[in-house]
Amino acid sequence: MAKVRALVLERQHELALRDIDLPMETGPEQVKIRIHTVGVCGSDVHYYTHGKIGPFIVNEPMVLGHEAAGTVVEVGAGVTHLKVGDRVCMEPGIPDPNSKASRLGMYNVDPAVTFWATPPVHGVLTSEVVHPANYTYKLPDGVSFAEGAMVEPFAVGMQAAAKAKISPGDTAVVLGAGPIGTMVAIAALAGGCARAVVADLAQPKLDIAAQYQGVIPVNIRERNLVEEVARLTDGWGADVIFECSGSPKAWETIMELPRPGGVIVAVGLPVNPIGFDVSTASTKEIRIETVFRYAHQYERSIALLGSGRVDLKPLISETFSFEDSIAAFDRAVEARPSDVKLQIVMG
Amino acid sequence: MAKVRALVLERQHELALRDIDLPMETGPEQVKIRIHTVGVCGSDVHYYTHGKIGPFIVNEPMVLGHEAAGTVVEVGAGVTHLKVGDRVCMEPGIPDPNSKASRLGMYNVDPAVTFWATPPVHGVLTSEVVHPANYTYKLPDGVSFAEGAMVEPFAVGMQAAAKAKISPGDTAVVLGAGPIGTMVAIAALAGGCARAVVADLAQPKLDIAAQYQGVIPVNIRERNLVEEVARLTDGWGADVIFECSGSPKAWETIMELPRPGGVIVAVGLPVNPIGFDVSTASTKEIRIETVFRYAHQYERSIALLGSGRVDLKPLISETFSFEDSIAAFDRAVEARPSDVKLQIVMG
Amino acid sequence: MAKVRALVLERQHELALRDIDLPMETGPEQVKIRIHTVGVCGSDVHYYTHGKIGPFIVNEPMVLGHEAAGTVVEVGAGVTHLKVGDRVCMEPGIPDPNSKASRLGMYNVDPAVTFWATPPVHGVLTSEVVHPANYTYKLPDGVSFAEGAMVEPFAVGMQAAAKAKISPGDTAVVLGAGPIGTMVAIAALAGGCARAVVADLAQPKLDIAAQYQGVIPVNIRERNLVEEVARLTDGWGADVIFECSGSPKAWETIMELPRPGGVIVAVGLPVNPIGFDVSTASTKEIRIETVFRYAHQYERSIALLGSGRVDLKPLISETFSFEDSIAAFDRAVEARPSDVKLQIVMG
Amino acid sequence: MAKVRALVLERQHELALRDIDLPMETGPEQVKIRIHTVGVCGSDVHYYTHGKIGPFIVNEPMVLGHEAAGTVVEVGAGVTHLKVGDRVCMEPGIPDPNSKASRLGMYNVDPAVTFWATPPVHGVLTSEVVHPANYTYKLPDGVSFAEGAMVEPFAVGMQAAAKAKISPGDTAVVLGAGPIGTMVAIAALAGGCARAVVADLAQPKLDIAAQYQGVIPVNIRERNLVEEVARLTDGWGADVIFECSGSPKAWETIMELPRPGGVIVAVGLPVNPIGFDVSTASTKEIRIETVFRYAHQYERSIALLGSGRVDLKPLISETFSFEDSIAAFDRAVEARPSDVKLQIVMG
Repeated sequence: MAKVRALVLERQHELALRDIDLPMETGPEQVKIRIHTVGVCGSDVHYYTHGKIGPFIVNEPMVLGHEAAGTVVEVGAGVTHLKVGDRVCMEPGIPDPNSKASRLGMYNVDPAVTFWATPPVHGVLTSEVVHPANYTYKLPDGVSFAEGAMVEPFAVGMQAAAKAKISPGDTAVVLGAGPIGTMVAIAALAGGCARAVVADLAQPKLDIAAQYQGVIPVNIRERNLVEEVARLTDGWGADVIFECSGSPKAWETIMELPRPGGVIVAVGLPVNPIGFDVSTASTKEIRIETVFRYAHQYERSIALLGSGRVDLKPLISETFSFEDSIAAFDRAVEARPSDVKLQIVMG
Repeated sequence: MAKVRALVLERQHELALRDIDLPMETGPEQVKIRIHTVGVCGSDVHYYTHGKIGPFIVNEPMVLGHEAAGTVVEVGAGVTHLKVGDRVCMEPGIPDPNSKASRLGMYNVDPAVTFWATPPVHGVLTSEVVHPANYTYKLPDGVSFAEGAMVEPFAVGMQAAAKAKISPGDTAVVLGAGPIGTMVAIAALAGGCARAVVADLAQPKLDIAAQYQGVIPVNIRERNLVEEVARLTDGWGADVIFECSGSPKAWETIMELPRPGGVIVAVGLPVNPIGFDVSTASTKEIRIETVFRYAHQYERSIALLGSGRVDLKPLISETFSFEDSIAAFDRAVEARPSDVKLQIVMG
Repeated sequence: MAKVRALVLERQHELALRDIDLPMETGPEQVKIRIHTVGVCGSDVHYYTHGKIGPFIVNEPMVLGHEAAGTVVEVGAGVTHLKVGDRVCMEPGIPDPNSKASRLGMYNVDPAVTFWATPPVHGVLTSEVVHPANYTYKLPDGVSFAEGAMVEPFAVGMQAAAKAKISPGDTAVVLGAGPIGTMVAIAALAGGCARAVVADLAQPKLDIAAQYQGVIPVNIRERNLVEEVARLTDGWGADVIFECSGSPKAWETIMELPRPGGVIVAVGLPVNPIGFDVSTASTKEIRIETVFRYAHQYERSIALLGSGRVDLKPLISETFSFEDSIAAFDRAVEARPSDVKLQIVMG
Repeated sequence: MAKVRALVLERQHELALRDIDLPMETGPEQVKIRIHTVGVCGSDVHYYTHGKIGPFIVNEPMVLGHEAAGTVVEVGAGVTHLKVGDRVCMEPGIPDPNSKASRLGMYNVDPAVTFWATPPVHGVLTSEVVHPANYTYKLPDGVSFAEGAMVEPFAVGMQAAAKAKISPGDTAVVLGAGPIGTMVAIAALAGGCARAVVADLAQPKLDIAAQYQGVIPVNIRERNLVEEVARLTDGWGADVIFECSGSPKAWETIMELPRPGGVIVAVGLPVNPIGFDVSTASTKEIRIETVFRYAHQYERSIALLGSGRVDLKPLISETFSFEDSIAAFDRAVEARPSDVKLQIVMG
């Protein structure tokens, strides 16, 4: 253990920049990374404002942050694909490689996963972290630390796009243009959709999404989404619906959006069970997919950033220094509609 | 048109065996079939007892019956795969071959489908019927008319099994051991499942299902289904859940049944939207499939009957003559738990 | 029938611009289209230089051309989705909607398909053509006739991309940078690949492909493709290999390119059977897909052009007037490496 | 290490029953198993007769045997799903759980796999063996040791059936009725096929396969397979072809067997590249799958045996005592067509 400076959530509503003891020994198959950039995620903010997410409760002081990029400063025994000086980003969830889910390739649904900044596991808003080399990914030359720290939320979008089983040229509808909805829209387009109808009530969010070629913004205060989708698809319906609002209301009319044989990917997580109209879904043989974080999406996401086919820089709304990281969280709490991603750059 | 004797639903609650005018000209690409056996389906009975199903209302007298087998007695121009004397069964739904859904291979979700004994289309509880040759299928020598008339309900089970995308050796759970649940269980086993846990409250229904090798009956009055499935799968969960009860209650605990990455096929149609727990489904990345009748399942079903790998004869509870067909319907209304399929044999 | 001016292949090596009798009656479910632009395809050129392709032999004078866009000038009975004045492109192959393959959604492999400019069926290098409305697709405002006439070859690439079952962020390798290889690379990228390594011997072809973001050109005169792919994928291999050269030599080392569990899509058609190393393929569990033209790819292709996510204009090398169409064919015979697509604009 | 009695392949052509040093310490996450039954596999026999298989050469004395069942006699730290006394069978290949292939769920194609009785790794024709608990599977009460030792070869068939992506009611063709072809046919039927046309030259092999319901034996000395398949499928072709002969000759006409859109699973491994007719395959858009051993097939196989849906006992041709194990191998060398599986029962 070593004493390092970190952004610590002491308890609900109370953040502190202070020294804390963290493990700093680089074991076999591990690397030590000096953190460069950390994104502020909605879940970090939620722990700050609510002190818990579902069954995960902040009972002890916990370092926040799980969207991170940095530089390898130490390499453990047996690590061959990384070396000191490599610029990297890291997958925050570490599964048990011998669990049944992991062996089947679905490590994200392994109940044994430990995940940064999910109580009682510390996050990475600190100077250095030790991490399994297997979940540490090299960034190509053209991909900055800022973009590297965006890989985590983009991987959420990529998982949703993968689950949809997009056929090239599909038409998507994305319900909700928050950070996740926007990531999903970008991933859906990169993943083969010809166009993504993005629906929201907040025009500033739609304006940001609309910067991406293929996005068709629909402000549902002004226009009827079902009619828009019908118009765009000659009455046939969209191939893929990504529900990213988490709103029970979205589920009330969602079955009118997909084409016969279409799919709904449930990305947003409503707190309570929503009303699912099985009969209407059946007349079109709708398929519904659910997603949990991501598996095997980091390398794919980095490849898309590296080739220039995906540009996430327009989503970085503002960058804070580590010293200002509490201010960054307070800004995040404001939830300005024009803010997609706030980032913190370490010393 | 010709005057023929038929079982006519005059209006709700009123059946008559009487003459009625039906089209009897065999056009090109059509065949005329002398009906031999017709199964009584829950939907026929529902029109009898309720006069409607959803938006389909019996406003005019309508001939009932859509599960039928018979013998080709006339062959229209252009028909090459059938000849007079062939023993056949018929698919009751006829789509528009030029609709978008049909062209994509999903003719069952073509809104233009016309379906026997669905208002205002007449069914086949009569002596002869003219039908498109393309939707008329030859029965192999070893398959009786009685089994031929079972192909229709079995195709419902086959569609559900196909949607599940069973991997060989999967473990299935079937909720509800009514006629459809039983068909689904048989199709799931024939379709690759190693075992099908069939759950119901009615022991006579379970006893019938339990005749099939691979069925594990669970009387949920006596045993806890979630615990049974956990026990049988070492706590992992089942690969495929077929919801065939149509009960909203089944959806309350259904997410505890599948394994991570498992699938729920919604076969039963609850009248109202059910509560769908998206968050719990997401932690396991559950997929949900819905089904509507069937497409491309007749030849597959007949092949399974013909090879002896599926035997539906144990499901035929009693056979009535055409003259007793009103009695057959009244017996069906009783809904005896030991009745799976009642059939009517024409003169 | 009506006498119209057309580019007629009289026999091998002999083209004529002359009047010919063609059917010009617009029947039900048909539209008449005034042809605007026609692309010159390799198969058109092959009939000109060889008088046949496989079993298809030019025994009678035949109008050439099957990559076409134009304007609807007459609408037959029953057509609802098109009207006079609509700018459209047309699918050149017409299947039997009642064939078994068509009913399954695979109309492209229906042996009954008739295809423009495939003996004895006339093509469309003429003023007007009558066509089934179902295979005539409206062009969005932003898509020119020139691009509309590119939909046909692009659909070939889209079919290959669809068969690959790309996961978002996949790495592709395209063997051969001719017109088809280039279309495949563009479709693979639009269809979800992060990058497409395109390999060829001819630098001008690679230079054209390299205009597209995500293309990594590899001149195999200068560099070892297997090594390049290994380097780009950290020794893992590519997810998808598109074999577009049709060269038996390509198959000799192709198994070294895919990753374990990867796929090879065979697009190029070698004249004779090629050597397939089953044992090496098995150690990686490689899947091989084959493609035949396309099915259901027109609307998807047009959607990608319409949204701006795909731009095919850089591939149009030169445009000829109808009066110069024989010169266009003679230029195509030259097979300049810098020529991707030559087009002919009607009067 | 401990000295134990084993069947040792000293070198090509020379077997000895003698003592040998083998590791016998049960580490964490491991179990020690007392071996009960071991099947004789073609690869064991091939090492005996040829001293090598491909790149795997017997340079040191090696214990043979990898198809084994036995009883747990010791349980290492951390093992929870097994206890002393459990009857089990074991998967002979152990991958690196942290390899890229393993993490993706494809541990069978991990190049780091070590596999029993594959030089230089010892097999299990000995009294006891230490094995990872994760690759040791409990047998249900109704499944004997003899059947448990059949799980390994059956898993090969299951992998092929899984790769085929069988739709319930498919028609399969199996080329070659040797032990693997027979296992594949049984797995294909259990995995959802309605019928499996099994083709071979040797009538005794066909007679054994024909005991299974759904198998249609075709002796290709007497009948033309292409014609038989056409007759059985009304000229459409079979859905799935399993090539299990490994003969280049089989590939010469194989493309005439599948239906449009059908699949060929290459199970047999020809020594040299075979001739693959890409053009003919393309006109039907045939898919080709290759397989390597199996992944995730043990539990599925055991479930099928346990439910009684698969019975492998008819394939056990003769059982030898451990003392007669050299005789068992000499009998296997004879390759009697009526021998499917020879087994050795330990003391």
